[in-house]
Amino acid sequence: MVVLRREIGDVLRDVRQRQGRTLREVSSAAQVSLGYLSEVERGQKEASSELLSAIASALSVPLSMVLREVSDRIALVEGISIPDTVPVTFTEQVAGPQQVPQDDLARV
Amino acid sequence: MVVLRREIGDVLRDVRQRQGRTLREVSSAAQVSLGYLSEVERGQKEASSELLSAIASALSVPLSMVLREVSDRIALVEGISIPDTVPVTFTEQVAGPQQVPQDDLARV
Repeated sequence: MVVLRREIGDVLRDVRQRQGRTLREVSSAAQVSLGYLSEVERGQKEASSELLSAIASALSVPLSMVLREVSDRIALVEGISIPDTVPVTFTEQVAGPQQVPQDDLARV
Repeated sequence: MVVLRREIGDVLRDVRQRQGRTLREVSSAAQVSLGYLSEVERGQKEASSELLSAIASALSVPLSMVLREVSDRIALVEGISIPDTVPVTFTEQVAGPQQVPQDDLARV
């Protein structure tokens, strides 16, 4: 089962690590304790709305972007992502064996 | 300042009302108290990850969709939505008074 705080924690840690910053730096900038930030990143503590905003701000990323990333990751787990192509097996399941287009038949 | 729990509450209430369902129905389906759901909808209480999942499930909407909607609303407040067109005033501010394209000059 997908747990929101774990996904939020993963995204926050990924953003911080991409910036090459330490827990100490970001917790100081966000004015939260290092232990708290660490627990949030590990999905062990729910971040309040205010503290989540403070952390996003300390990371210089809009809160909406953090949530968008979280939403995208959860969508993958929920299996509601839209694939780029429809797998042949799925097409056959729905529409029966694939028909060969007329153009291809002409070339045979 | 944008407060996450208020946006989450707004989205949850909107979804419930669009479905024409009462607080009582949804709180019962989500196995949370009516008072708790009401407080969450009004942005007065932070919903834990587990209870947010339960509420989304009771509303038959994927959690990712709720978060996507929340993210979109916050993006609007943060002003990072991409406008369809660039306002002329903004263009002038950045690039100076608009130049008339050569084609238009030829037609004068």
